Amino acid sequence: MRPFTVSMNLDNINFNGNHIVRRYEDIKSIFKSTDISLEGKNPVIYEVFESPVPEQQGHLIFLVTILYPGKVNEEFFMTKGHYHTVENTAEVYLGIKGKGLILCQTKSGDFEVAEISENRVVYIPPFWAHRAVNIFDEPLIFFGIYPAHAGHDYETIAQSGFVKRVFSKNGRVVIE
Amino acid sequence: MRPFTVSMNLDNINFNGNHIVRRYEDIKSIFKSTDISLEGKNPVIYEVFESPVPEQQGHLIFLVTILYPGKVNEEFFMTKGHYHTVENTAEVYLGIKGKGLILCQTKSGDFEVAEISENRVVYIPPFWAHRAVNIFDEPLIFFGIYPAHAGHDYETIAQSGFVKRVFSKNGRVVIE
Ligand SMILES: [Mn+2]
Ligand SMILES: [Mn+2]
Repeated sequence: MRPFTVSMNLDNINFNGNHIVRRYEDIKSIFKSTDISLEGKNPVIYEVFESPVPEQQGHLIFLVTILYPGKVNEEFFMTKGHYHTVENTAEVYLGIKGKGLILCQTKSGDFEVAEISENRVVYIPPFWAHRAVNIFDEPLIFFGIYPAHAGHDYETIAQSGFVKRVFSKNGRVVIE
Repeated sequence: MRPFTVSMNLDNINFNGNHIVRRYEDIKSIFKSTDISLEGKNPVIYEVFESPVPEQQGHLIFLVTILYPGKVNEEFFMTKGHYHTVENTAEVYLGIKGKGLILCQTKSGDFEVAEISENRVVYIPPFWAHRAVNIFDEPLIFFGIYPAHAGHDYETIAQSGFVKRVFSKNGRVVIE
């Protein structure tokens, strides 16, 4: 593979790699409760644009995540969240637009919440699961980088969830 | 290590890790010729702010490089450039401000030039040496990420240089 460049023009983003789109029906099981008002519209909760890089050790995958604003009942829109299959692999997020929280946890029970917003860098060390939550009324957009061989373990989170959830209650962001 | 966040506020950047400053006298040997007009001032050519992350496999180091505008005679200001000591390690740059070129080459003689500017991502695959060149009249600023165990081999470049250099000639950017 030779060096290449791509544009991160948010009006027309295309990194020429995987484009993942998660709609309400795809991921409704991650929320505390289902929301009848979303059943018909089945909105896109988030989408991810990845770089076209082989999933091999030595490479780095870069991506842009767009997590749309909204709630499932009182719970803010969020990503599925995952551990890396190869657990000793970190991830770096750079906030581009919007405001959100990155929920992080380890299999031994540590939990941490990091704020992300424009020009804020979040460092997710190896062994920490990560999920993004949009706590604002505009899309949360961030640039991310992770080792290409890391892989995604969504199953552990699907089974046991994150330690805490993030709700909007009386206009306040509540982590509980 | 726990997750953490830092601000990429360019007015007062501090990632709390290594801060590398390279002045003319430190790196004048990388240019084709010395420039008497820079001997007294000894200007800063570039500086790098790195994240405080252990240099261990699994971690990722993120950084901001500020490469100042200027020339050594006709040759644009540039970074030392390096291979990674652990050669099978990539690097990702995201342009923040300014305009530049990333010169890339392999030990087997391949050479590539990638343009970098605001919101443009440059992917430097494993095994490719990389050097930044500022071809504009403002600082070139980019965000970068590389595996923390990669290490820097400056010596190979110090001995044999890059295949090409970038000059300003009659107001044009010339790669030769
Ligand atoms: Mn990840
Ligand atoms: Mn490097």
